[in-house]
Amino acid sequence: MPPAAARTRPRKEIAAPASPWEAGRKRGLGRALKRDAVILAAARAFREHGYHQTSLDDLAASLKVTKPTLYLYVPNKEAILFECFKAGLAQIQVSLKDCEGAGGPARERLFAFIRAYAAAIVGDFGWCMLRAEDQHLGAAMSRRIKLLKAGIDKRMRALIDAGVADGSIRACDTRMTAFALAGALNWMGHWYREDASLKPLEIADRFIDVFNKGLRGHE
Amino acid sequence: MPPAAARTRPRKEIAAPASPWEAGRKRGLGRALKRDAVILAAARAFREHGYHQTSLDDLAASLKVTKPTLYLYVPNKEAILFECFKAGLAQIQVSLKDCEGAGGPARERLFAFIRAYAAAIVGDFGWCMLRAEDQHLGAAMSRRIKLLKAGIDKRMRALIDAGVADGSIRACDTRMTAFALAGALNWMGHWYREDASLKPLEIADRFIDVFNKGLRGHE
Repeated sequence: MPPAAARTRPRKEIAAPASPWEAGRKRGLGRALKRDAVILAAARAFREHGYHQTSLDDLAASLKVTKPTLYLYVPNKEAILFECFKAGLAQIQVSLKDCEGAGGPARERLFAFIRAYAAAIVGDFGWCMLRAEDQHLGAAMSRRIKLLKAGIDKRMRALIDAGVADGSIRACDTRMTAFALAGALNWMGHWYREDASLKPLEIADRFIDVFNKGLRGHE
Repeated sequence: MPPAAARTRPRKEIAAPASPWEAGRKRGLGRALKRDAVILAAARAFREHGYHQTSLDDLAASLKVTKPTLYLYVPNKEAILFECFKAGLAQIQVSLKDCEGAGGPARERLFAFIRAYAAAIVGDFGWCMLRAEDQHLGAAMSRRIKLLKAGIDKRMRALIDAGVADGSIRACDTRMTAFALAGALNWMGHWYREDASLKPLEIADRFIDVFNKGLRGHE
């Protein structure tokens, strides 16, 4: 249970997306759009207040609907976190597919992926992607998240392997290189602030500079 | 509250250090040693079961003392987590001081620090160092942890700055370089397993290879 200080901290208003239920009454918007709105509002609330500190009541209120209405779209809070995780991952998977399928040296395709990953990790679903595993989920849910993450790791490593094969990346420990890259990028979730001077793509470019050229000066 | 699955998961025995209370009865070991044993046993239990899933009762049992005995050494669980965090940090601070004070190019001193950091992060207090901030601590405790972490970041960046100044590190964004390095190292806490083929210093050397020489192959 969170300490009293965390529970009684004054809440900032959750920056929920415009509620499609209000619009829907006028324009008959579909179920998928409403479900997406639940997922997005949840992602923002989890990032702002934490997963355990966000109740379905908070979420319903931010969307101006009742809690029973939420249950028409999602079975429980754990399932919402998983959907947030998957929504973030879907962005990464689309970028990966683009980078895998593009022409040119694999190193350039890897760097394009790094840029896309940096943008995704600081986006609405970034917090859920990075923190979902830490939220004491049930064993089955944790396993599914780990599996999906491992799939991304594997494809990232395959891009590095392709770079070694085409000569655009020098021979290196490709597994450790993938971990170093993923760590550098995921760590952004701990220090990145939206009001900072560097935007995600600029940060990615600084990282790419370091990883591409290395640090050594004169010998 | 953790889901039922997490709470009822069968517990592995906590690998607590030998209890100095038992030895103490024979040899009169001191208070500081007993307090250290509480901190170390807690660090291992937190890593094994998670902070919220470890009770002071569990901890007392693992040390074969009563809970009131624990209170002779630590006021509450939050304070224990903070002590674990500080114990891990103390290792890092000692290494930093060594590296700052050593002779030779700053790049080599930075790499020596990376090795020490990798060893510390997978050690007994590594989990607490990486995860203390995520445990819904009170605001005052969170602030103290953030401040101590920021101090390490600052000194790591100063080492990189010194490398740029002495020419052993090429001109780069030293702040982003420090974040990339810290991210790569801290991410070990998510994937490193004690039974893995690479030991912490070998992993550090692979990282150093990547960060030193960069990834680019032929142009």
